[in-house]
Amino acid sequence: MAPRTPKSVVKVDVTKQPWEQDSPLHNRWHPDIPPVAQVSVEELFRVETIDWTGGQILDNDSAEDVKNIDLSRVHYLSGPIRVMDEAGKPAIPGDILVVEICNLGPLPGDEWGFTGTFDRENGGGFLTDHFPSATKAIWHFDGIFAYSRHIPGVRFPGLIHPGLIGTAPSKELLDIWNSRERLLVEETPSLTLCSSLHTRPLANLPLAKGALLGKIPPGSSQWQAIANEAARTIPGRENGGNCDIKNLSRGCKVYFPVFVEGANLSMGDMHFSQGDGEVSFCGAIEMSGFLELRCEILRGGMERYMTPIGPTKLHVHPLFEIGPLEPRFSEWLVFEGVSVDESGKQHFLDASIAYKRAVLNAIHYFSNFGYSKEQVYLLLSCCPCEGRISGIVDAPNAVATLAVPTAIFDQDVRPKRGTPSAARVIQQANVPKCVYEGKLPITKVLSLE
Amino acid sequence: MAPRTPKSVVKVDVTKQPWEQDSPLHNRWHPDIPPVAQVSVEELFRVETIDWTGGQILDNDSAEDVKNIDLSRVHYLSGPIRVMDEAGKPAIPGDILVVEICNLGPLPGDEWGFTGTFDRENGGGFLTDHFPSATKAIWHFDGIFAYSRHIPGVRFPGLIHPGLIGTAPSKELLDIWNSRERLLVEETPSLTLCSSLHTRPLANLPLAKGALLGKIPPGSSQWQAIANEAARTIPGRENGGNCDIKNLSRGCKVYFPVFVEGANLSMGDMHFSQGDGEVSFCGAIEMSGFLELRCEILRGGMERYMTPIGPTKLHVHPLFEIGPLEPRFSEWLVFEGVSVDESGKQHFLDASIAYKRAVLNAIHYFSNFGYSKEQVYLLLSCCPCEGRISGIVDAPNAVATLAVPTAIFDQDVRPKRGTPSAARVIQQANVPKCVYEGKLPITKVLSLE
Amino acid sequence: MAPRTPKSVVKVDVTKQPWEQDSPLHNRWHPDIPPVAQVSVEELFRVETIDWTGGQILDNDSAEDVKNIDLSRVHYLSGPIRVMDEAGKPAIPGDILVVEICNLGPLPGDEWGFTGTFDRENGGGFLTDHFPSATKAIWHFDGIFAYSRHIPGVRFPGLIHPGLIGTAPSKELLDIWNSRERLLVEETPSLTLCSSLHTRPLANLPLAKGALLGKIPPGSSQWQAIANEAARTIPGRENGGNCDIKNLSRGCKVYFPVFVEGANLSMGDMHFSQGDGEVSFCGAIEMSGFLELRCEILRGGMERYMTPIGPTKLHVHPLFEIGPLEPRFSEWLVFEGVSVDESGKQHFLDASIAYKRAVLNAIHYFSNFGYSKEQVYLLLSCCPCEGRISGIVDAPNAVATLAVPTAIFDQDVRPKRGTPSAARVIQQANVPKCVYEGKLPITKVLSLE
Amino acid sequence: MAPRTPKSVVKVDVTKQPWEQDSPLHNRWHPDIPPVAQVSVEELFRVETIDWTGGQILDNDSAEDVKNIDLSRVHYLSGPIRVMDEAGKPAIPGDILVVEICNLGPLPGDEWGFTGTFDRENGGGFLTDHFPSATKAIWHFDGIFAYSRHIPGVRFPGLIHPGLIGTAPSKELLDIWNSRERLLVEETPSLTLCSSLHTRPLANLPLAKGALLGKIPPGSSQWQAIANEAARTIPGRENGGNCDIKNLSRGCKVYFPVFVEGANLSMGDMHFSQGDGEVSFCGAIEMSGFLELRCEILRGGMERYMTPIGPTKLHVHPLFEIGPLEPRFSEWLVFEGVSVDESGKQHFLDASIAYKRAVLNAIHYFSNFGYSKEQVYLLLSCCPCEGRISGIVDAPNAVATLAVPTAIFDQDVRPKRGTPSAARVIQQANVPKCVYEGKLPITKVLSLE
Repeated sequence: MAPRTPKSVVKVDVTKQPWEQDSPLHNRWHPDIPPVAQVSVEELFRVETIDWTGGQILDNDSAEDVKNIDLSRVHYLSGPIRVMDEAGKPAIPGDILVVEICNLGPLPGDEWGFTGTFDRENGGGFLTDHFPSATKAIWHFDGIFAYSRHIPGVRFPGLIHPGLIGTAPSKELLDIWNSRERLLVEETPSLTLCSSLHTRPLANLPLAKGALLGKIPPGSSQWQAIANEAARTIPGRENGGNCDIKNLSRGCKVYFPVFVEGANLSMGDMHFSQGDGEVSFCGAIEMSGFLELRCEILRGGMERYMTPIGPTKLHVHPLFEIGPLEPRFSEWLVFEGVSVDESGKQHFLDASIAYKRAVLNAIHYFSNFGYSKEQVYLLLSCCPCEGRISGIVDAPNAVATLAVPTAIFDQDVRPKRGTPSAARVIQQANVPKCVYEGKLPITKVLSLE
Repeated sequence: MAPRTPKSVVKVDVTKQPWEQDSPLHNRWHPDIPPVAQVSVEELFRVETIDWTGGQILDNDSAEDVKNIDLSRVHYLSGPIRVMDEAGKPAIPGDILVVEICNLGPLPGDEWGFTGTFDRENGGGFLTDHFPSATKAIWHFDGIFAYSRHIPGVRFPGLIHPGLIGTAPSKELLDIWNSRERLLVEETPSLTLCSSLHTRPLANLPLAKGALLGKIPPGSSQWQAIANEAARTIPGRENGGNCDIKNLSRGCKVYFPVFVEGANLSMGDMHFSQGDGEVSFCGAIEMSGFLELRCEILRGGMERYMTPIGPTKLHVHPLFEIGPLEPRFSEWLVFEGVSVDESGKQHFLDASIAYKRAVLNAIHYFSNFGYSKEQVYLLLSCCPCEGRISGIVDAPNAVATLAVPTAIFDQDVRPKRGTPSAARVIQQANVPKCVYEGKLPITKVLSLE
Repeated sequence: MAPRTPKSVVKVDVTKQPWEQDSPLHNRWHPDIPPVAQVSVEELFRVETIDWTGGQILDNDSAEDVKNIDLSRVHYLSGPIRVMDEAGKPAIPGDILVVEICNLGPLPGDEWGFTGTFDRENGGGFLTDHFPSATKAIWHFDGIFAYSRHIPGVRFPGLIHPGLIGTAPSKELLDIWNSRERLLVEETPSLTLCSSLHTRPLANLPLAKGALLGKIPPGSSQWQAIANEAARTIPGRENGGNCDIKNLSRGCKVYFPVFVEGANLSMGDMHFSQGDGEVSFCGAIEMSGFLELRCEILRGGMERYMTPIGPTKLHVHPLFEIGPLEPRFSEWLVFEGVSVDESGKQHFLDASIAYKRAVLNAIHYFSNFGYSKEQVYLLLSCCPCEGRISGIVDAPNAVATLAVPTAIFDQDVRPKRGTPSAARVIQQANVPKCVYEGKLPITKVLSLE
Repeated sequence: MAPRTPKSVVKVDVTKQPWEQDSPLHNRWHPDIPPVAQVSVEELFRVETIDWTGGQILDNDSAEDVKNIDLSRVHYLSGPIRVMDEAGKPAIPGDILVVEICNLGPLPGDEWGFTGTFDRENGGGFLTDHFPSATKAIWHFDGIFAYSRHIPGVRFPGLIHPGLIGTAPSKELLDIWNSRERLLVEETPSLTLCSSLHTRPLANLPLAKGALLGKIPPGSSQWQAIANEAARTIPGRENGGNCDIKNLSRGCKVYFPVFVEGANLSMGDMHFSQGDGEVSFCGAIEMSGFLELRCEILRGGMERYMTPIGPTKLHVHPLFEIGPLEPRFSEWLVFEGVSVDESGKQHFLDASIAYKRAVLNAIHYFSNFGYSKEQVYLLLSCCPCEGRISGIVDAPNAVATLAVPTAIFDQDVRPKRGTPSAARVIQQANVPKCVYEGKLPITKVLSLE
């Protein structure tokens, strides 16, 4: 019996452009993007990925690259990978594709990552009304630990995971996506009444510009047809996709619905670490990386295990099984927010606003310990913090909480009696930042200016 | 030195009505409700509480009591308790009151609890559109474990916590609450555009009926004045209150803002266990109970550690410190939801809807294992499951996840190859249920009928 | 259905002497000690216990009581309890008695405990050659936490457990015990060659003096017969007994062999907390307490699940199932010892000596942080530290390790660069101590004097 | 700033013999073995190692290689590595060398390992009296998981660690080792009285045969001088060495005493996983591998933090700091043993015998579930089980416990009511085994034959 060295199915070269890779990448979801590799169940295989921006962000001390990022091009995915059973028959629609994450990590020789906030008029973020400027922090890896020259005094073990992993949608499912997202955009005016998040783009509809479609020759008529209707990769949807589940790490299993023959599994957007919510949008510690995977097929599993809502019964979601290997923290500080926005306006059971308030509370709190608010915002976006929906029924307030492990700091950050004279002067370093020069008015909130 | 037996400050008698207790209870928030006890920092003290409904729900096999509950009377709180420092000086506004939960549990002789869903027209719940009927499950305690004759096959250790604990608001803060909640109710029409939760009451404004105000004689002019403006206890707010944080158990600390002299700490609504979100509304394992507490005062701590948003700088929130004692589960099944509602409509980064979908997915899933959907709904409301905001930036989809520990079931509930012939017939028992006879139309969603 | 209030089967009164309790206690193991209570499987029942010494140790600042303790009287046990199945038939020899620990804790009103080292000539301890004097530390409980006025600067959650719990031996098993322990004592001379622990009594053989035998009238002929052959309770043996397993807490199950009809379960010696090894002998935080238990019978389980060594097949041991509720510590300092004794003499794969060295290393280490060595010795005996056999095959050295959770200290106890000027002056308090006046020579070991 | 790719200081080629490697290896401890590499503090560096036997054991289905292993050649170590501070000055005696394990794993392309029991007359093991034959199990790695074709039905995440890591001894320390171990061998007769382990070699004294000494030319006079007095690597000693601490994995720190200039750090014997005690001797999942490390120097730290026992003050031990990343198991079965040996003979507080009995109990227990005793013996040697010294003071019985996580099995291994008819027939596979043909008499113990 041979050693269990994983079979390499996608290799990348981070010194090349995304469109120059030997194994063609893609950055859209569409049933007709052809597989680049094939694997059998029970076979351990290895997939490498470039970072989600395809190398647009550099390891330097300026945030200009974040400010000027081209978001039409993201996220660059490796795959699709076609999955066959022991008898050589492919997964088919209705099956469940089980993907076990046996190992994963940064690419050897490329052990670094970045976290950023986008400019309010080019991407924005969860708190873009408060933090409209592009910022960036670079992270270095010491094996399982990450630390940053831009946010001194913190160091934590990564819970490495793919931010984006999913199966290809069927044409039918794709149409559902496009139609509901288009409807949202057309309804914008009424939506502005209920969300304080309205200054960000409502949805990213299909866009041919920037599309990379694997083996499909760019500019060909087939490319044109697909690019015009292929779904963008930004949101998580029924196929998994950009689900940003921070615990999806070594030893986990994902149960994906299969919508096309072969399942056509794709993945990318590797994160060294992420906080729940990934609040700054470019918010995890973004990196290139590798995954070692193993698949299984549960024939007919969708009907049995997934929720077939609606007439088409395609509104299903992946299911995850979290394994036994996670960093173990014993003490947490927990910040609470309720669904009253920063202007004092009451909202009805709105967990998004409650979570926004919890994050703002945490940013204010940690800024007592020698950090700038931008540093904390980036930190809470990428450290292993947990965002919870604690109460969702006690009208009118949803209660959301953000729990931050205290062990990531090299100082004691708990509330103390007396003046925190020991609050360390950390601001010898700060995060690179570009001044916001946009036209949208910025929310004036006293305490956060 | 004497043994550390806690000083008893509030005792209750569960065979009496709430208004008959020796230590007067209250069920509204108001600065003028006078303290019923006084404690010093460093003193260990014991508070007993009745269940949040004041004994309206009985240990029997009918859900009639849940259907006909009088919600104007909840939640019955023990306190207020006035807190003094070592020198005998009270906590004052601007201080932080640190409350350590040294121990807590059910009342000896009253070791049972209940979980219910309210009738859609008398309280409702997170999924009231799908589950409009009143239901009830009774739980029995075996020391740290809970089990139910109405939901066989599950048993789990409780993470006992007070659902409701907080300091008294100042008059200024109370006015802010009343004004913003009134504004919400008046704006109802526009809100219905953005929430699928709109069939529930938008807010519970002050209501004299049912008010119990501690030592204030009912019907007196002072009672009338307070009852007309005192805040209801349903939502969590800046003073803590009904925060429903399931991890607030043995060994935790809460850092409360102090708004009135003496802090006036109150608590009640003890939960034997609760899932994040407490989705069925009457959703934890509700019980009577006791707490052993110890306080500390951080003089002037609010300005230092809390976020003073807005002109009044009163929009602050409690902070929690989670301790090292929690049930330790090693395997979880994680259900995902995105912000597309059950009708297929796309919403913009709405974590509440995403979480609703995650919960519906979990209900469907576990109903494969011999449970009715009502049983699962109640179970997910009160077992130690975790509700996370996984992604809140990838427009238009918020991604919420619900993680359920597999060890609470006495069968293997993971997805399996082949027909789940082994799915046990559990429905020898089911939860008591009252037929919904209301007038509001019920959402028709194929898969969940 | 009635609330699940546990049925009280043994109550104690800590203001009375052990022999004055309403439910007669016992302090020896013998098949003929009659049951004092009977329970059925599936019945939740409550047992109270006095502390193991029966009140000989007081909450004061002198170690005289520890020095002069009468060890012929320990341990005082509650029971025996006879266990019946659903049909009213008793457990019989060959069955396994499953005992689930549903809850346990200190007795209300008696929330304190003690840890001590015995005088070298009256009990001694694991390190009695280094610490020959009687010492004592009193602990106070704040709910789940313990702290001591004699060892300032530490505070930790207890993992409460019964130090001693077991089923009654059969006559046959009792004879095996007595015969093998007598043989040991008779072989003393050869043993002194191989153990540095030889200054302590080799075994505690049956002793009528001090015996308390439950319902058997003291001084009666039956009492005399039993007292002369009943086994002492000091060592753990095949029936469980003084196993001192620190994790045997809430939610655990013990599988006991049944040797006599009814199983005759007894228990006592409650510990608020204990470190692995219980090194100072009177080493846990000793207290009175209560247990809430539930039993099950596995008919014929001994043959199936236990190891029937030897001709009599009675050499079996209990089996434990550790539950999900334990304090969760994320950082530990680990001390190593190998089987070379303090004089430099090499021993062959002797884990006891290796562990002794690991404990001595830890005592030396923590004495850098403002503690006396006596304080550390007591602390390591009762705090939740873990003693491991790391290597037992690499001749000639066994490697044992002692892991101490850093979170129990209120200062950072990790090794640091530079002079530990911050080492806090803690010795404003120390443990009460009696000078050793014995005749045995004390080992001279430079570094530990 | 460059990416944090670790600097490679030792590379190995597993297709070559140990003595053919580009970076010379060594298999003895001696101060005069010259460094092969130099690193600075704060520098991340990578060390590769071959397996401890240097390729003597093959991935096949025969145990012949285990039976005939040449133990004079083990363990092959990478290093020594000389460590310098920021200013280019080396670590010196009296300093502490802090080594942080930032990452580690199997060598890419060599993802397999082995566990074995040696023949009783060529190495033996902890239970060699019961299991005198050579056996072997091959393990395959699926990322973080290990499974074996020879022990079906188990799979667990590895807690990868170096079995052997340490600093070079000074001449003075080496002399202490040699003198005390020689004394042990000369005292054999008296030792046989107190240990049932006496059939194994008492110690492995210096042996020129098989010695590999890094850059020192084999056969040279310098080689001869060193080989004759260099310490064997089998036991752990004051310099760390073969400490076999199973938790010494990602994120841990080791604080080593420094005995020679430059510290001269060496390491090898990588384990994919190990149980406490490593009972079968060749007992972990042995493999080749890599480590990514980072060093720090605490000047003068030995005097401050380590226990300077004896006149030479060299009897010190490493200190370990365990990090937050470990597999998290929630349920354990715990087996107990007391210090009565298999023949029924009572020993005095002998933790080694107590642990032996606990391991024998566990072997018997798990053999109820379809496994051969040899399979269980190997499994308990390498799975993440914990061996504890629970009680070491209750004369005459030491109590040791062995805790086995139930989640490593694919069946429910807890005790159950009724006949275990479901006990799976696993013995379609068994471990390769060589018949014992030696001359030493085998202990006859009924239950284990």
